Parts: sequence; structure tokens; C-alpha cells
Amino acid sequence: MRTTRKPNVIVAAFALPMAFAAVAQAADPLPSWNDTAPKRAIMAFVEKVTRPGSPDFVPVPERIATFDNDGTLWCEQPVPVQLYLTLDRVKALAPQHPEWNTKEPFASLLKGDLKAALAGGERALLEIVMATHAGMTTVEFEQIVRTWLATAKHPKAGRLFTEMVYQPMLELLAYLRANGFKNFIVSGGGIEFMRPWTEQVYGIPPEQVVGSSIKTKFEMRDGRPVIVRLPELNFIDDKADKPVGIHQHIGRRPIAAFGNSVGDQQMLEYTQGGGGARFMLLVLHDDAGREFPYGPARGLPDVKLGAFTPALDEHAKKDGWTVVSMKNDWKQVFPGQSTVTAIDILLKLTTPVCSRPTRKGSPWTRRIVRTSR
Amino acid sequence: MRTTRKPNVIVAAFALPMAFAAVAQAADPLPSWNDTAPKRAIMAFVEKVTRPGSPDFVPVPERIATFDNDGTLWCEQPVPVQLYLTLDRVKALAPQHPEWNTKEPFASLLKGDLKAALAGGERALLEIVMATHAGMTTVEFEQIVRTWLATAKHPKAGRLFTEMVYQPMLELLAYLRANGFKNFIVSGGGIEFMRPWTEQVYGIPPEQVVGSSIKTKFEMRDGRPVIVRLPELNFIDDKADKPVGIHQHIGRRPIAAFGNSVGDQQMLEYTQGGGGARFMLLVLHDDAGREFPYGPARGLPDVKLGAFTPALDEHAKKDGWTVVSMKNDWKQVFPGQSTVTAIDILLKLTTPVCSRPTRKGSPWTRRIVRTSR
Repeated sequence: MRTTRKPNVIVAAFALPMAFAAVAQAADPLPSWNDTAPKRAIMAFVEKVTRPGSPDFVPVPERIATFDNDGTLWCEQPVPVQLYLTLDRVKALAPQHPEWNTKEPFASLLKGDLKAALAGGERALLEIVMATHAGMTTVEFEQIVRTWLATAKHPKAGRLFTEMVYQPMLELLAYLRANGFKNFIVSGGGIEFMRPWTEQVYGIPPEQVVGSSIKTKFEMRDGRPVIVRLPELNFIDDKADKPVGIHQHIGRRPIAAFGNSVGDQQMLEYTQGGGGARFMLLVLHDDAGREFPYGPARGLPDVKLGAFTPALDEHAKKDGWTVVSMKNDWKQVFPGQSTVTAIDILLKLTTPVCSRPTRKGSPWTRRIVRTSR
Repeated sequence: MRTTRKPNVIVAAFALPMAFAAVAQAADPLPSWNDTAPKRAIMAFVEKVTRPGSPDFVPVPERIATFDNDGTLWCEQPVPVQLYLTLDRVKALAPQHPEWNTKEPFASLLKGDLKAALAGGERALLEIVMATHAGMTTVEFEQIVRTWLATAKHPKAGRLFTEMVYQPMLELLAYLRANGFKNFIVSGGGIEFMRPWTEQVYGIPPEQVVGSSIKTKFEMRDGRPVIVRLPELNFIDDKADKPVGIHQHIGRRPIAAFGNSVGDQQMLEYTQGGGGARFMLLVLHDDAGREFPYGPARGLPDVKLGAFTPALDEHAKKDGWTVVSMKNDWKQVFPGQSTVTAIDILLKLTTPVCSRPTRKGSPWTRRIVRTSR
């Protein structure tokens, strides 16, 4: 029998972000945020919904906050993390599927060309992800994710993916939690891809993760009761279905919601549509020096997934949503960048994984790629 | 605009059970349980999974307990509570559906013959329930449930349905919660029928309720973002799909599970299938004096829904599941029965709702019916 947990291996990999968040919380609750409008707006909101006697006071059980994951809590460029796992799964399963060598998007995946594999759009992609993640029990899949995350590294930064989380958002999660909020992830990513690690990395337990899913089935396998993952789509937790996923899992309307793309628009609309004080925030990826710049709002490069469009930018302005400029509003992007620059840290990396240069990379990514070759 | 909450009305209706649970907790955590094997087994289990250094110790985040609702936490006889709401909904909608007067099961429902309406089986029934509960927004439906529960009474006992909860189970919920457990409802009943009241009655918030559901859709209605209930089945949370619902919502295997019928068997099997200490319990409705006797295990009368079959009884024995005899193991069944007998209390009821005698009722139910006419 496989065991469900290997705590020693996995905890070590996850210790860094949580430790940083804990230290940060002691003094200023949001030390990685510059003292600009977004930080002030967040703290003013939390103050008014938590102060007894405030006209905007919200009882603890109703302090629900929802967070998108890819591009909001962790880095989703050059492609979302789950795609790297998918690539590795396709490689592992390829010997049983010789037809994949010529069949798209598998052929592109096997060549390592993730961007070409993305050409089929988000829905097709999710179906592929689901198909390559099915057939095993949920316990076996959880172990696949844990084992993979313990060693797989970001192709450009050379760090574990679980270290490519945004330090300011870790602080925000801890700050909200300390103020009686219950934080949920509401992501287009696979619910079972996230659950094995969100508790250690974000302090968000599995039951507070909402995501896309495939169907599953209860059965007795070798005399033991298991849940088997079926190659059939169950729910895509994106765009107008994010409020549906929220309602299905949580059953309350959030009072605060955080996202970064058109996939989050309806979640923010739904949040704002409730009575009383509400807080909506979008992360704008405009930091070419420390992360990946993409929009295409405000003249930033276009991307296929996770787009912050000019229309979304307009919508945010019209409805009073807070937009965080990573460049201007965040002192620090990733954990461990506080006293030295990102480039200083990254220059010290000895075993970067990436072997392919990006043509349109930011100065930061270009430099990492050069360094790593 | 409708408001989401009417706290003053609803809190008054719900205050009784919680108050009782609070008082009970102060001394013996399970005062309504006789000092028999089930109580001892529960307390021994909780002790061994919570005592630091115990070989069976379970960390707090993994202390997940799942509870069936109908027949496990509250009374499901003569028919499950949601059917009474369904009946009232059918009556309210009947003027718009003249065809219902001759079309089953609506015709039987309109005549008040719930047992005949049940003849189509559980799945057909759930579809009817869902169909009569669709078309409105989720906020409107929540208000329908709240308004209905504030006045609707059990047809035999004449008490609010939310007072027809099992006092020993309220104590058990509080006892587990005090020991770091997170309690979930996992019920075949409608998830949105339960969520409006489970927090006040059981201390179980909406996000910890798993149940059957219809599909929903996000849309802008009169310029406001709402979720609309569609007349299409989404998920039936029963039998082999209870573990599926648990996995989908919670993402962890429970370490304790509580039920009362064949609909709960797989939930208990799934719970037991995990590693380490586990606790599985079934409630046997063998108390003709204080509740409704049904099985058909152990010679008790047969019922269509919520059956505790001889095969389930055998299964429980074989796998070491605890079976609670309501008659022998519970000092008290409903809140407010501690110092006088059920019959004494019920004789004092001045405005019982029931107007139809049962032919096969227990002595208790026959007496109530007589008294009420």
C-alpha cells in the first residue's frame, strides 16, 4: 500500500514561504507592500469590517475571501505550473501511446513546446490535463503531485514552483486569517492538483480549495474502498462558472475577492453584488524586472492565458476595484528577495533547469536564461 | 431588493437546540447518552486521536467528521422534512400548473398524500424536489427556506422541524468540535435546503454542508449579479456518491462518520478504509415510545426511505461499526425532554398541525394524533 503522506520530504520543500509570512506578520502585517493606495485600501477595508460597532462590521463566519491561484498567488508564466506536470505525465505515459508522437497537442508537448500545445485554447487544454491525470486513485494522484512538486523547478528561475509564490499575497492571506477571514482558493486549475500543497504553502486547507475537476467514482479495488479518477470532465471553474463554484462549495457570497485576469471578472462582480462593504482586487503583472510583464492592458505584452485586458482595466476603474501594480506597489515579489535583488539571488542558482531562451523575455528572464546556459 | 438575512426571526426559532447543547457541554460532554457501549466507544476514540503522544494521534486539520442529516441528526419520519417544503411549494406553484391535478406525483402531493408521492422512488423524488425548487435566485430560495422553517411544524409532534433534532447528536457535534474536529454534513438532501439553518442548529456553517444539488448559472438580472437555480439535476449525494461528494468538497478522507441507513454505507466504508484510528456509527431507530420505529433490521417496521436493513446490520457487526439503539443508548431524544417524558411534553402542545391519523403509527405517534384532533 502507498501511504498518503510523506511529511518529512514535503514539509522541507514548503517551509520557506510560511516562515517568511510568520516573520512578516510580527510587525507590519504587510511589510512587502509599499505604502501606496492598494495597501491602504486593504487595511481600511479590514479595519471597517472587523471593528465592533463599525457600520460595516461583518461577523466572523461571513468573512469569506476568495483568491484566484495562477497569477494571483503564484507565478503562471511562461505557462501555468500544472502544464509542466502535464508535460511530465505525457512523457511518462507516452510509451503506452505511440500515436501521441504525431497527434496534437501531445506531439507539441512531447517536443517540450508548451506554447504550441496551448494553441487549442483553455478548454481543450483543461481536457488534456484531465485526461492525462485520470485512471489512478485519488490517493495515487495526490502522491504523484507531491513527489513532482518536491523536485520540479521553474524553468527560468530554477526555484521550486512552491517558492514562486508572491510574498505580498502570503502576507495578505495571513493578515486576513488573523482578522477572522476564511480564505478560499477559487481557481481554473485542477482542484486535486492544488489540494496536496495549498495547506503548507498558503495555509489554505483542502476543503477551502475550489477548482476544475474530472469526475470520480467510488469503488472497491483489491478489497479496499477507493475513489478513482475518470477521464471525463466534471466542472471548469473559470469565468462565469467561478461564482457557480463558489456557491456550490462555500454557499456564501465572498466579501473580498482577488484575481488577475478576465477569468476572475465574474468572481469579482459576484462579490461586489452583495450588500455591505466589499473589496475587489486585481494584480497587474507590470514588473519586467522581477517577474513577467503581461497584460495586454496598459501596453503590456499579450498572453493567451491569464489576460488582463484593457476592457478589464476599464471595468476595474468603473467599479472601483483596486489594481495592484506589482512594480509600484510591491516591495518584494517572491520570498527571499528582501535584502538583495532578484537578480543577485538568481545569479547564485547553480542548477537552473531551463535550456530554452525566450525571445520576448523581460530583462530579468533574459538574464536568467543567459546565466543558465 | 430582498435582504439575505432576517436574523431576529430566525435566531429565535433556532435558539433552543444550541442553548441545550451549550448547557450540556459544561459537565459531562454527552449527558443525553446512557453510559453504555456507544458512548464509551465515542469517548475512547476521541481520547486516543487527540491525546498528544498517543500512537493514534491525529493532527487537528485531519480531524474530519461527516454526518448524514435525515435520520441521523434530525427526524426523518413520517417522511423527510424537505418533502413538507416540497408539498408547500407544489401548492404555491399549482395555480400555474393545472396539469398537476392529474399528473403524478404532483396529484398525490396536492392531495397531501406524501407516501403515495414517494412511490416513484428516491431518484424520481429528488428530481421533483429539484424541479419545484428551481427558477429563482439562490438568495430568493434561501429566503423561502428560512421563512418556511420559521413556522412549519412537524405534523405529529407539532414542534418546529428545527426542534426535531436529536439532542444526543447536538452534544456529539459540540463534543467533537471542542476536540478540534471539523464537522461536515453529507446528506442526500438538498444542499441549499440545509445551508440556511445548519449553522444555527448544528454549528455547521454552509461551507461544511455537502448535499444533493441542481445546476446553477451566474447571470446579471436587473443589472445585479445573481446565481439562478436551474431545473436540472447536478449531483445526488447518496450511497456510492457520498464518498464522491466528500472527496469533491472536503478533499480528505474523514476519520469518523455517522449515519443511519443503507444510503450511508459507502460513506462509512470509505471512512474506515483510511489508515489509522477510525470511528463509524449508525443510529438504529428502535424507540417506539419517543420517536418512530423503523428498520427493517431487528424486526422493526420497513420504510421506503432511510432503511436500516438486516444486511446493513450484519455489515456493521462484521466491520465493528458502532450501532446506537435510540431506545437503550439515549437518555433523551429531542431537546426539552430531559425532566418529563416525551408524552408529557407533547400532551401540552396546543396547536398541533397534523390532521391525518397514521394507521401504523407507534403508540407515541398514535397518541399524539389522537390528542391533536
